Amino acid sequence: MFGICPDANIIDINHQVPRYSIREGAGSLVFALPYMPVGIHVAVVDPGVGTDRLPVGIKVARGDVLIGPDNGLLVGAADALGGIVEARALENRDLMLPVISNSFHGRDLFSPMAAHLASGVPFEKVGPVVPTGDLVRLTDITPTVGDGVLDTSVVHVLIYGNLTFAGTPGDLEAALGPLEFGQRLSLEFPAQNGSAKVKERTVWQRTFGTVPVGASLLYSDSEGHLALADNQGDAAKRLGVSLDRAVRIRRA
Amino acid sequence: MFGICPDANIIDINHQVPRYSIREGAGSLVFALPYMPVGIHVAVVDPGVGTDRLPVGIKVARGDVLIGPDNGLLVGAADALGGIVEARALENRDLMLPVISNSFHGRDLFSPMAAHLASGVPFEKVGPVVPTGDLVRLTDITPTVGDGVLDTSVVHVLIYGNLTFAGTPGDLEAALGPLEFGQRLSLEFPAQNGSAKVKERTVWQRTFGTVPVGASLLYSDSEGHLALADNQGDAAKRLGVSLDRAVRIRRA
Amino acid sequence: MFGICPDANIIDINHQVPRYSIREGAGSLVFALPYMPVGIHVAVVDPGVGTDRLPVGIKVARGDVLIGPDNGLLVGAADALGGIVEARALENRDLMLPVISNSFHGRDLFSPMAAHLASGVPFEKVGPVVPTGDLVRLTDITPTVGDGVLDTSVVHVLIYGNLTFAGTPGDLEAALGPLEFGQRLSLEFPAQNGSAKVKERTVWQRTFGTVPVGASLLYSDSEGHLALADNQGDAAKRLGVSLDRAVRIRRA
Repeated sequence: MFGICPDANIIDINHQVPRYSIREGAGSLVFALPYMPVGIHVAVVDPGVGTDRLPVGIKVARGDVLIGPDNGLLVGAADALGGIVEARALENRDLMLPVISNSFHGRDLFSPMAAHLASGVPFEKVGPVVPTGDLVRLTDITPTVGDGVLDTSVVHVLIYGNLTFAGTPGDLEAALGPLEFGQRLSLEFPAQNGSAKVKERTVWQRTFGTVPVGASLLYSDSEGHLALADNQGDAAKRLGVSLDRAVRIRRA
Repeated sequence: MFGICPDANIIDINHQVPRYSIREGAGSLVFALPYMPVGIHVAVVDPGVGTDRLPVGIKVARGDVLIGPDNGLLVGAADALGGIVEARALENRDLMLPVISNSFHGRDLFSPMAAHLASGVPFEKVGPVVPTGDLVRLTDITPTVGDGVLDTSVVHVLIYGNLTFAGTPGDLEAALGPLEFGQRLSLEFPAQNGSAKVKERTVWQRTFGTVPVGASLLYSDSEGHLALADNQGDAAKRLGVSLDRAVRIRRA
Repeated sequence: MFGICPDANIIDINHQVPRYSIREGAGSLVFALPYMPVGIHVAVVDPGVGTDRLPVGIKVARGDVLIGPDNGLLVGAADALGGIVEARALENRDLMLPVISNSFHGRDLFSPMAAHLASGVPFEKVGPVVPTGDLVRLTDITPTVGDGVLDTSVVHVLIYGNLTFAGTPGDLEAALGPLEFGQRLSLEFPAQNGSAKVKERTVWQRTFGTVPVGASLLYSDSEGHLALADNQGDAAKRLGVSLDRAVRIRRA
């Protein structure tokens, strides 16, 4: 990219997305991009590299362009940046490296395309328009608000072992009624994909330091999602719970 | 930070401090900052995020400003950069993000504060002065020089498994008398926190290449501390020794 | 480096070379540098730090300078950048830090030397010429083309567990005759260094997406080498095969 656009300011957001996890990659973009300056953002989590999945560029309302595979990785972030203005297939060979390998489109296609855009090439040059409705979207993971019970699932596991759920504190209060810090809660992770049912008693709290070291808490994380963590511990490891695991939350 | 100060030169020193290890984080700053240009340095190892621990800025004699939690993380580096000139509580909301989460002060408070300082905001604007004596300091880990014996402890474990001790070669010679390369030494790590006593025979040497592959040596590391390493091996793993472990060194 | 050359554009290519693996480090440079802008490249994988191995600078035909230990780490990349124009021993103390530790030449010697070159110091100033033929070279790992059999070895293991072989598709066709995608192949990793013999049936394919999830394929990687991978799996882990392992490939 510096070879094409020597004055670029290249920022490495995340090189630690688990292999092939489009949802984790998408979550990372949704998490980070609203806090980044307007720019050209390249993302590659690409189990389909070398097959017919489309390379796309997505222009968003805030002014950014997102570059990557059309596999659901980019659309959530586009929504978080004001919504899609226009999507185009990346087809202009003049904006790629001369030789395109079958297994490293990040280097040969996506990065040079982004560098050309960063150096002033107009977005219209990348390739033909793709109807927004044709873009691949990840399946939705909306929580279910019941009477005294919230059903949601794990959408992110932090390196610290904190479990982030799709549901928000608003969802939880819609299900359980108004909550005060200190409220005891019961979480149940049903058996799933060969993992046995797991039960956890925890407490609704504002932040880690309010529970003893090693104890768990449910809290509102920095993105406004419900999250379960062990103070100075690793909740995911202790409970054996990973991405996409369903969870049911009640008062205890 | 680039959103606030687009011309900043942001350098990532270390994202691999073990979770919650204030001492490791502090050690990393003491290790690195004297070799970095004068600047605004943000550091966050923050088990107390969201509680009442103070966010602080520390101006040092070399001209740098250190930004982070007041939990002992910054003071050692301040000493290494010529000493504290002035400390201030970070209270000016105009220099933070509009919304401050409970669990991500690195993003919402410390980084924007640092970016404003980097873009020219005077240090006095961050908040009121804090008396230097009120800052949290880590407990001291001074070695004990005995007659023919040096008692010290592990203050850092490198990713290679090298064990860095608080004591220096000067301390060792104060305890054992003048040393020549090749001198055989006996190390004893007493039982501690459930770990059994460990004994190690090693040799005082100048550098790795002077002992066989797999053999250990005690040497003066790049910071002037005593360190134990296995040539092309992992001494910490082999011995089962970790941070804060006491050690007693004698001639063998 | 920023202290010496504030306008430098410093790019971190790789901090994840396995400890002491000169071959992996050398492979990383060969892989990356042809895609980087012309520049001063510092590389340190240095089991011999503190011994008499020479610190060297190598000027190459493309215009880059490579800086690091003379232990085979740099020469392959120099070849990939058009070949060696001139090699010099790094001896000019004015271009190093004032104090040189025994164990951290990356900081005290190689980096400042590179920063001075980046800020315009002529290459001739680093020290005296070293005859190109005196530079340490890694042992060659040329594949052996037999009648219906290709003998080669693992030269790189990607973080995904993909195994890269020294041999190319050209070598394979020289041994087995013309290949079509879908051709079944038999790989045999003979017993080596205490690891038992491993056999693997796979298929010659263009890219991952052409085989089922979990199935393996042999393909031409982004550098034009033969590689074995599991689609969305970890072939190295599954087979228990690591760097330098020999392999024999036949039609199945």
